Amino acid sequence: MTTTIDLKTDLELNVKRALEEDIGTGDITAALIPEGQMASAKVIVREKAVVCGKDWVNTVFKLVDPNVSVHWYVEDGSMVEPDQALFRLEGPARSLLTGERCALNFLQTLSGTATRSRRYADMVEGTNVRLLDTRKTLPGLRNAQKYAVKCGGCFNHRIGLYDAFLIKENHIAACGSITAAIQQARANEPAKPVEVEVENLDEFQQALAAKADIIMLDNFSMADMRRAVAENNGQAKLEASGGITDESLRSYAETGVDFISIGALTKDCKSIDLSMRFENL
Amino acid sequence: MTTTIDLKTDLELNVKRALEEDIGTGDITAALIPEGQMASAKVIVREKAVVCGKDWVNTVFKLVDPNVSVHWYVEDGSMVEPDQALFRLEGPARSLLTGERCALNFLQTLSGTATRSRRYADMVEGTNVRLLDTRKTLPGLRNAQKYAVKCGGCFNHRIGLYDAFLIKENHIAACGSITAAIQQARANEPAKPVEVEVENLDEFQQALAAKADIIMLDNFSMADMRRAVAENNGQAKLEASGGITDESLRSYAETGVDFISIGALTKDCKSIDLSMRFENL
Amino acid sequence: MTTTIDLKTDLELNVKRALEEDIGTGDITAALIPEGQMASAKVIVREKAVVCGKDWVNTVFKLVDPNVSVHWYVEDGSMVEPDQALFRLEGPARSLLTGERCALNFLQTLSGTATRSRRYADMVEGTNVRLLDTRKTLPGLRNAQKYAVKCGGCFNHRIGLYDAFLIKENHIAACGSITAAIQQARANEPAKPVEVEVENLDEFQQALAAKADIIMLDNFSMADMRRAVAENNGQAKLEASGGITDESLRSYAETGVDFISIGALTKDCKSIDLSMRFENL
Amino acid sequence: MTTTIDLKTDLELNVKRALEEDIGTGDITAALIPEGQMASAKVIVREKAVVCGKDWVNTVFKLVDPNVSVHWYVEDGSMVEPDQALFRLEGPARSLLTGERCALNFLQTLSGTATRSRRYADMVEGTNVRLLDTRKTLPGLRNAQKYAVKCGGCFNHRIGLYDAFLIKENHIAACGSITAAIQQARANEPAKPVEVEVENLDEFQQALAAKADIIMLDNFSMADMRRAVAENNGQAKLEASGGITDESLRSYAETGVDFISIGALTKDCKSIDLSMRFENL
Amino acid sequence: MTTTIDLKTDLELNVKRALEEDIGTGDITAALIPEGQMASAKVIVREKAVVCGKDWVNTVFKLVDPNVSVHWYVEDGSMVEPDQALFRLEGPARSLLTGERCALNFLQTLSGTATRSRRYADMVEGTNVRLLDTRKTLPGLRNAQKYAVKCGGCFNHRIGLYDAFLIKENHIAACGSITAAIQQARANEPAKPVEVEVENLDEFQQALAAKADIIMLDNFSMADMRRAVAENNGQAKLEASGGITDESLRSYAETGVDFISIGALTKDCKSIDLSMRFENL
Amino acid sequence: MTTTIDLKTDLELNVKRALEEDIGTGDITAALIPEGQMASAKVIVREKAVVCGKDWVNTVFKLVDPNVSVHWYVEDGSMVEPDQALFRLEGPARSLLTGERCALNFLQTLSGTATRSRRYADMVEGTNVRLLDTRKTLPGLRNAQKYAVKCGGCFNHRIGLYDAFLIKENHIAACGSITAAIQQARANEPAKPVEVEVENLDEFQQALAAKADIIMLDNFSMADMRRAVAENNGQAKLEASGGITDESLRSYAETGVDFISIGALTKDCKSIDLSMRFENL
Repeated sequence: MTTTIDLKTDLELNVKRALEEDIGTGDITAALIPEGQMASAKVIVREKAVVCGKDWVNTVFKLVDPNVSVHWYVEDGSMVEPDQALFRLEGPARSLLTGERCALNFLQTLSGTATRSRRYADMVEGTNVRLLDTRKTLPGLRNAQKYAVKCGGCFNHRIGLYDAFLIKENHIAACGSITAAIQQARANEPAKPVEVEVENLDEFQQALAAKADIIMLDNFSMADMRRAVAENNGQAKLEASGGITDESLRSYAETGVDFISIGALTKDCKSIDLSMRFENL
Repeated sequence: MTTTIDLKTDLELNVKRALEEDIGTGDITAALIPEGQMASAKVIVREKAVVCGKDWVNTVFKLVDPNVSVHWYVEDGSMVEPDQALFRLEGPARSLLTGERCALNFLQTLSGTATRSRRYADMVEGTNVRLLDTRKTLPGLRNAQKYAVKCGGCFNHRIGLYDAFLIKENHIAACGSITAAIQQARANEPAKPVEVEVENLDEFQQALAAKADIIMLDNFSMADMRRAVAENNGQAKLEASGGITDESLRSYAETGVDFISIGALTKDCKSIDLSMRFENL
Repeated sequence: MTTTIDLKTDLELNVKRALEEDIGTGDITAALIPEGQMASAKVIVREKAVVCGKDWVNTVFKLVDPNVSVHWYVEDGSMVEPDQALFRLEGPARSLLTGERCALNFLQTLSGTATRSRRYADMVEGTNVRLLDTRKTLPGLRNAQKYAVKCGGCFNHRIGLYDAFLIKENHIAACGSITAAIQQARANEPAKPVEVEVENLDEFQQALAAKADIIMLDNFSMADMRRAVAENNGQAKLEASGGITDESLRSYAETGVDFISIGALTKDCKSIDLSMRFENL
Repeated sequence: MTTTIDLKTDLELNVKRALEEDIGTGDITAALIPEGQMASAKVIVREKAVVCGKDWVNTVFKLVDPNVSVHWYVEDGSMVEPDQALFRLEGPARSLLTGERCALNFLQTLSGTATRSRRYADMVEGTNVRLLDTRKTLPGLRNAQKYAVKCGGCFNHRIGLYDAFLIKENHIAACGSITAAIQQARANEPAKPVEVEVENLDEFQQALAAKADIIMLDNFSMADMRRAVAENNGQAKLEASGGITDESLRSYAETGVDFISIGALTKDCKSIDLSMRFENL
Repeated sequence: MTTTIDLKTDLELNVKRALEEDIGTGDITAALIPEGQMASAKVIVREKAVVCGKDWVNTVFKLVDPNVSVHWYVEDGSMVEPDQALFRLEGPARSLLTGERCALNFLQTLSGTATRSRRYADMVEGTNVRLLDTRKTLPGLRNAQKYAVKCGGCFNHRIGLYDAFLIKENHIAACGSITAAIQQARANEPAKPVEVEVENLDEFQQALAAKADIIMLDNFSMADMRRAVAENNGQAKLEASGGITDESLRSYAETGVDFISIGALTKDCKSIDLSMRFENL
Repeated sequence: MTTTIDLKTDLELNVKRALEEDIGTGDITAALIPEGQMASAKVIVREKAVVCGKDWVNTVFKLVDPNVSVHWYVEDGSMVEPDQALFRLEGPARSLLTGERCALNFLQTLSGTATRSRRYADMVEGTNVRLLDTRKTLPGLRNAQKYAVKCGGCFNHRIGLYDAFLIKENHIAACGSITAAIQQARANEPAKPVEVEVENLDEFQQALAAKADIIMLDNFSMADMRRAVAENNGQAKLEASGGITDESLRSYAETGVDFISIGALTKDCKSIDLSMRFENL
């Protein structure tokens, strides 16, 4: 898997910002190394992981010094083992050292998200459910994390507040009823998907009758969720959300809902342990 | 504790970016609520935590809608208990809903870092050691996380590659010796602090003789570290790094080193669980 | 109608850019007027129009000089008559003159789009069809024009390439079939609406069977379009597109399709004639 | 005709902005096409037009994907016939599809302005008059449109408020007299051209006596305009403005004025109809 | 004299950049002072000077902390004496210290340019000549310096390459003759002033015959310059340039040329000596 | 000497800004030269100087036109003689003319700073003192000037307010004593160097006892400075500052202090005289 064209501006903005906060007015320690000196290095992963962040690493070195070449042994989405080499760098020693931390910070963070996503995706393997991310993301890394989620075998919910409706309690109260809220949403933006969050079977039935595209079953018991799936009979898409633990995840998946959304995919981050090893120098 | 003036540009840049990635062309669901409708809400923390992110939250709502007022019950650095209210919002209902996720994303992430820092700081309480962060940070959030680290009672290492020397194996090899590397560093930038990473007592002695300001003892055994502290006798500052676990942290702290640096302060993030509760609406 | 919160960054960016290209290093002619001199002026419309651009005008004067006050007599979306006053300005004479052209350029352009949209919307009044805009917009003004379209009583299609699928001939060819393309789209992004463009009834039936959310009937004859509406029987949303003239628009609307998309709403622009009249000075 | 170096920053800014508003977080439909698949396509014009926008199209594809090659059959300023091919694209199919709309939006808009300019320029062919644009432009596209105006055979008035004086009624009132206003202008900025707008022959004579560089004859009758030309006898440059229709344009041109300024060159826009046809795929 | 509206964007950009390069991640020394502590201070000039930079100083403190108030005793363009107070600050002590250097850097630099301009302007007092600046400016400060030049009683030549022609040897060679070059310039941009640089009387006569607006007499002897003034007889504006020393300046001014351009106004800078004195603290 | 990687973003920002302020909407005079015409030119220095600014010049031409090649005869830091050629340009004549002034403005300014630095460095040759710059810099050019200072053989003090403490009178007063201020500084930021400004021997002794890293001896007499050097005996670094003239500089250097800081290195600028000579055209 490779990042598609679309992330490019976002990605470059993030890389520039990260380089600025790290390099500032310059890497004074790298300047101890003679200007022309060349070097090569390999980046090794120290734990089992799903790789994600190739284009971020490439962009770091492209911006630091176009004379650095990056040769990859794996693709984004690959599962790798401890001590496996991920990529090899060749170029001016100064530039390798200057870009190292910034490149690894992206790679360890995004691989962390991809690995976590893979772990969850594996838990529901064999079911038809798709695991979705949420808008609970690390500020500034929304799109990067959403890409990492896909590298790990999960799927993306809406990007932000603008590309789909998610009608909750407050919106319903303001509109008077679930039906009124859905009608207003269709009237305002007929081309956008409409999702409604419901708290019980009664609300679920209203949302179904009002032809919501997606219905979020919030904190439903397993029994109610199964009943909703049965009543729905393939009409709307159903999303389970809230109160789902690692232990109960598979059971929820087996109720037959279409989606389960999981905040922990993106709001927590356990970085993958990486190491850059110089081959000479 | 409040953010000082210096973080302001950085903070605004981060908030703008986060708002853009979330709001895009507009919160279509909030538009279901009548334009003039006012609301109030409280943000509650659902677990024990050290709060961090007040100015980020304030800036989110200032940029979303200057008519939203934010009233805080706690300060950055405060330890809070489950179900404690952190702040109260009053203003147009649409604006509260539109800014909610972005504000909470900053607060949950930075409080996560502050809480983790507090946990480590507590482990070494009563010793003289200071725990330092590293450059292993979430891309784009370097300065914000460094602020959170201080809110949690730990301290900041260098900000980036530009404000201090950290001379490692590769730099030493290129200069010929530890002594030569330190001399070159002083010659290039006489006003910058010089830190050297050493792997054994022999290298430690060279660095000490060459008058490094800080010496990083990398992966030293407890015995060697104690010996280095003794030989140093207050001349250089000593920093322990590498191979330190939660279990061994306090023992290392008691060797008498000045600093211990801990990557996990900033490279991992367990978000604090928060909830916005509307009081009316 | 007022612009919602979401357009704010976009709007400010546009206003800043427009001010820069007009003012450059300064309004040398306004500098002939004494610095403290105050003035008031009214902006008059010289033809029948739907007004759009209030927030752009307000932002122009806020950025030029916060001491200028703008008092509006109408709202965005109002239908106005020749010689009707739209707003009144009070403030330093220099600032009124310096901001005049830039403010009027936004107002005349966006009111042009809103007025055109109103004209089309009126043509289909009484039918259930909704007229949609397209991605054929003036570069840099996509979101502003999409807002103007709504002020004129039409509706927005997808914002850009990222918030909905629009599967055309080339995508279908690459995937092998309409069914395969829709399945791949659902697999990649289960939370995004899927629209398919079809050229004939056979393709229409495939798209319908594959459960597309929206089906675009491209260059269909009136007869085929009616047949598609009948076969569809409320399952997918149907959009007519291509080959629709001012003369045939109403007939197409009466076929029972849900949407008709019209490039001319945003790709052409006939500015509304405006005039700023100083009351004193 | 090609854009000169000067427009480059402006142009890149516009293209980046337009790509961002169209692509956002990515072209999800293009992602249905296999990543490596190559394609070629031709862009055809569907009506008679003057082409303008080559560098904008090139920049769109350079930014979307440097592996796309663009081969042009015509130059900016060329008159083209219906169904004539303008340029040919080769490169990754995804990239062609992703850049298509953005590239065509620039080309159809700027060619619209160039074509309109050519139409006006042809109306005054054989006279010595030069047709000038005004500051009534599409916000953000001032410089691009001014370039298009030249591609169509018309000429540029001042760029903005900073590069020349245009003294109108309000400025004259504030300075006390036309003579005083011109003297003040010369005193402030001796190196800038001074133009004065006059409403009648009496004001014209004052402006002439005060040695204005350009005199704008606002809403003069044909008779008065001829008299002004005679009295002027080549001293100042004369510009006709206001109340000039398609029908009367040539008569005004034949009065012997040097310039006629026409707001419609840039404030209205009728996009040229273009089509991208894939040759394979 | 105050900066006019036009410089505002430029000015804010410059102030932000200067604050960023000085403050970076924060003023760590100011943080030693208690957060709420208030202070007041006066800025004193230590040498005779023409003041310039008021709006830059105001903007520095507005951006650092809106709670700082700045009270000025003088205006831009005022001549001040050693030890005279220029302005007084009141506000949080931290903010005064943090903004001090950045504010003084602008004020000392721009007052340096204004003072130098005043010195030159005084040398030609009583003649009709106007002294002009050139494009030899400190990078990034072109517009700020051009404002300072006016504060010191000199005048502005063209702003940059875009607002006037300055035809030199190379352009003439490419066009074939002075006459051809001027004609081409008028044909391309009829609304822009045309200046030609000439090296001798023969070239001067060609430029005069071709009706250049301004003729630059480059390195003319005093005798030739007087002859050019006589032959010109008020037709074109004449500008002396090159080889003019402090000693010869007045003699050149007395030849009757309209302008003398002086690179040293802006390419050299002797900062004015300033001091901030805290009244309490 | 070449600029290191770190200045790159800063440098590009400065070059873009300078090009924008000079070129604006385009070089209208260069447009008189036929588009394809090639040219070559040499840039000559007209006075003895230390060269600085190579990467700025290269970046100017890279941004103006990548088809311009720049061939350098000297390096940054080289001492050059009057009439020596610095570099040769080849490329489109228009592009050479358009980039000329902007490139030379950087080169003349930075070489001015480097030359001035060299002159001071030569004055203290043979002593062990290092001359430091200050934060009194031309706004926007802080980092560029700091690089030029090094090209001229002097050294850099702290970059800004964020990378080192400089504790002055006001900070001491707020903390209660020199000792308290230093302790607070160490407590806040243990990894940052601490410098204290002292006014007399008594304060010096306090700073020494409190283990300041650097002590600034402000306006000390020669005798007191020698006594401080003796008492210090190599413990802290000592910096002389204030009241040092060209005449007394060497005597101060010979007192044995480590550093002398000199505001004039960067706050004043005497541009180096340069000339671009076209070889053909």
